[in-house]
Amino acid sequence: MMKNISILGSTGSIGTQALEVVSQNSDTLNIVGLTTNTRIDLLEKQIDIYAPRLVCVMDGDAALLLEKRMKQKGSEVEVVTGLEGLIAVSTASENDLLLTAVSGMIGLKPTLAAISAGIDIALANKETLVAGGQIIIDAVAAAGVSLLPVDSEHSAIFQCLMGNKHEEINRVIITASGGPFRGQTREQLQSVTLAQALKHPNWSMGKKITIDSATLMNKGLEVIEAKWLFNLKNDQIDVVVHPQSIIHSMVEFIDHSTIAQLGMPDMALPIQIAFFYPDRIANNRQALDFGKVRELSFEAPDLITFPCLQLAYDALDIGGTMACALNAANEISVARFLNQGITFLDIPRINRLVMEKHSVISNPDLGDVLAVDAWARAVAKRI
Amino acid sequence: MMKNISILGSTGSIGTQALEVVSQNSDTLNIVGLTTNTRIDLLEKQIDIYAPRLVCVMDGDAALLLEKRMKQKGSEVEVVTGLEGLIAVSTASENDLLLTAVSGMIGLKPTLAAISAGIDIALANKETLVAGGQIIIDAVAAAGVSLLPVDSEHSAIFQCLMGNKHEEINRVIITASGGPFRGQTREQLQSVTLAQALKHPNWSMGKKITIDSATLMNKGLEVIEAKWLFNLKNDQIDVVVHPQSIIHSMVEFIDHSTIAQLGMPDMALPIQIAFFYPDRIANNRQALDFGKVRELSFEAPDLITFPCLQLAYDALDIGGTMACALNAANEISVARFLNQGITFLDIPRINRLVMEKHSVISNPDLGDVLAVDAWARAVAKRI
Repeated sequence: MMKNISILGSTGSIGTQALEVVSQNSDTLNIVGLTTNTRIDLLEKQIDIYAPRLVCVMDGDAALLLEKRMKQKGSEVEVVTGLEGLIAVSTASENDLLLTAVSGMIGLKPTLAAISAGIDIALANKETLVAGGQIIIDAVAAAGVSLLPVDSEHSAIFQCLMGNKHEEINRVIITASGGPFRGQTREQLQSVTLAQALKHPNWSMGKKITIDSATLMNKGLEVIEAKWLFNLKNDQIDVVVHPQSIIHSMVEFIDHSTIAQLGMPDMALPIQIAFFYPDRIANNRQALDFGKVRELSFEAPDLITFPCLQLAYDALDIGGTMACALNAANEISVARFLNQGITFLDIPRINRLVMEKHSVISNPDLGDVLAVDAWARAVAKRI
Repeated sequence: MMKNISILGSTGSIGTQALEVVSQNSDTLNIVGLTTNTRIDLLEKQIDIYAPRLVCVMDGDAALLLEKRMKQKGSEVEVVTGLEGLIAVSTASENDLLLTAVSGMIGLKPTLAAISAGIDIALANKETLVAGGQIIIDAVAAAGVSLLPVDSEHSAIFQCLMGNKHEEINRVIITASGGPFRGQTREQLQSVTLAQALKHPNWSMGKKITIDSATLMNKGLEVIEAKWLFNLKNDQIDVVVHPQSIIHSMVEFIDHSTIAQLGMPDMALPIQIAFFYPDRIANNRQALDFGKVRELSFEAPDLITFPCLQLAYDALDIGGTMACALNAANEISVARFLNQGITFLDIPRINRLVMEKHSVISNPDLGDVLAVDAWARAVAKRI
C-alpha cells in the first residue's frame, strides 16, 4: 500500500535526504506536498522528479516566479505561499504522514494543524516540541496520531524502547559528539570564527543545527525534546559526550540493563524508521564495521565551557514557557552569529539574559507560546 | 503470582547467583528443587534457606550422607540421586521454570524431559544446545514452551531482538572479552599454566567455562548456541573481541541499524531476565557509569592463535553431529587440562583430531547424539 507523505522543508538537509529515501522506495512512498523558503530552483527539480500535487514557497515573490515557470512547462502543480501555504501542505487531505523538516518555531502551527487533521507526524523540527511541548503532546493524544522522531538521538531512544515498557525506563542517555570545539576552554572559544563553528566533526547538517551543535544548545534542545517525546521526568535524561557519534543514544532500564542503538552517522536511518515504522526495511546504507570502529569513548559534558546545555536543563526545571523563551532567544542569537553580528560566546550570553528577563507562564496555551516566542525574539535582537 | 523454579546445578556459579536473585524476589519466586554433584555442605545450607521439596545429589554416597543429615534435622526434603534423580527434579510437577545450570552434556536428557513436561527452560547449559540443537529446538516447538537464554551474550541478543521481527535480522555480533591470553602468540601460549588460564579478566565463573573462555572455545560454543536459540543462518553470526565486556552482544538489522545491550559484567541480569521475562524488574545491581567506562574497544578475533573458535565455525558448516563431537572432545580435553594432564595448546589439538576422525550423522536423533558424544569422549581420552 502506498503511503502519502508531505515534507515541510524539502530543500533542506533533512528534506533532501528524505527524498532520497522516497526515491529508493518509490513503490511504497508517494509525495503529496513539498515546501521551501526561497530555493525554487531545487524545488523545481524536486517537482519534476516527485510530481507533488502541491508545493509551498514561503517567500511570496519566489512563489510567483516558480508558479510562472511551472505553468510554462505545462505542470499542474499548485503553488501556495506563506504560513497559510505551509499549513495547506501540512493538512493536505491525502497525507498519511507529514515530515516537518523546517528549522525553527515556524514549524509549530503547521504541525499542530496536521495533528488535528489526524495526520501522523515525523518530527525533525525539534524547536516545535521545545517551545510547544505540552500543547503538541496533548494534541497528539487527542487526535490519536503517531509522533515519530527524526533525529538520530531520539530515533535511537525510540528503537531502544521497542518491545520494552515505559514504566521500566530508568533513564535515557543522550549521546553528544561534543561538536567541533570539544575539549576547548572558554578562553579558546572567544576567538572562534563562523567557519570553524560550521565544521561539524561527524555530521553534515543545516547551518542552524550545526551552530547549535557547536554550542551544545542542540543537545539541550534534545534533552527537552526527549522529555516530551518519551514522557520522561527531568532527572531521567542524561547526556554523555561520545565523540565518534556511533552510539546514537541509550536507554537504561530499571534492571540496570542498558540498550543502545548504533550505526554510521547517517540521517537516512531515522528518516526511514519514521517512514516505515513498525517495519524495518532493507537499504543500501553503510553497515558498522567493527574492524574500523576500533574505539568508542565517553566523557562528561563540559557545562562551564558550553553553558547552553545547562540553560536547557534550567529551562526544563523552571518549566512553563521558559524553554520557549530559550529556544526563541537561541534562534535569534544563532542567526546573529551566522550574520557575523555577534561572537560565539555571545550566543549563550544572550540566551541566558533573555531567560533572566522572562516572566514564566505556567500552563501556556498556543497564544501564550507565540507571544513569549515573539517577546523573546525581540529582546534577543536588542541585546 | 508465585513462579515455581527448580535449578539443576544450584551449588555452581550460576546456581548460587540464581539463588541470590530468588532471595531478592522471595515474594514472587519459589524454589521446588535443587541439585549438586557432590557439594552437599552448600546444598544443605540452600535447603535450610529455600526449603525445596526435592534435591538431587549426583554422587550416590554423598546423596545418602545428605539424606541422613536432613532426617536427623527433621527435614522432610526428598533426596534423589544420579541422572534419574536429575530428571525427577527437572520434571517436578510444580515447576513453572527449570534453570539448567549444570556444566556439560549431562544437562541434555533432563532438559529434554522438562521440555516434554511442558516446563519453560532457562538455559545456562550451552553444551546441551551445541550437542543436541535441532532435537531441543524441535522439542521446544512441539511442547510450546519458552527457551530463555541465561548467558550474558545470548541474553543480550534476546534483549536486542525484543520488539523486532526475526526476518529483519541481518546478523548478530557476539562480543568476546578475548580471555586472559588476548594479544598473545601461539608461542607464548605453549607455556601457559592452569592458574593463568583460570584468571579471567572480567568474569568470575566455573572452571570449565573459564578455560573455554581462555581458548575461545566458549565463544565458539556460543556461536553454535546462537544459531539454535535465534534460528540463524551460519553466516549471520559474527564474533568481535571487545575486551571490556560492557557490550554483551549486538544485533544488526536489515536497515543497518545496530542494537546493543550493555551493562556491568554481572550474571544476575541474564538470570533475572529469564526468570521474569517479559517483565524487567528493579534490582540492586550496579549501573553503568560512563564517567568510569571511558572507552570501549573492538578487534577481530585471532583465529590462528585461538583455533577453537574456527573449529566451532567449521562444525557449524559441516553440520549434523560434528558440533556434538567437538563439544564432547572439548569437555574431555578441558578436564584433562584441569587435571594438568595436557598443555593448553593440546586442547584445540585434541578437539581438532576428534573432529577429523568423526563420521558425521546428518539428522541425528537423541540416540545418535548420545552415541557420538560417548565415542568422541573415548577418542579424546585416548589421544
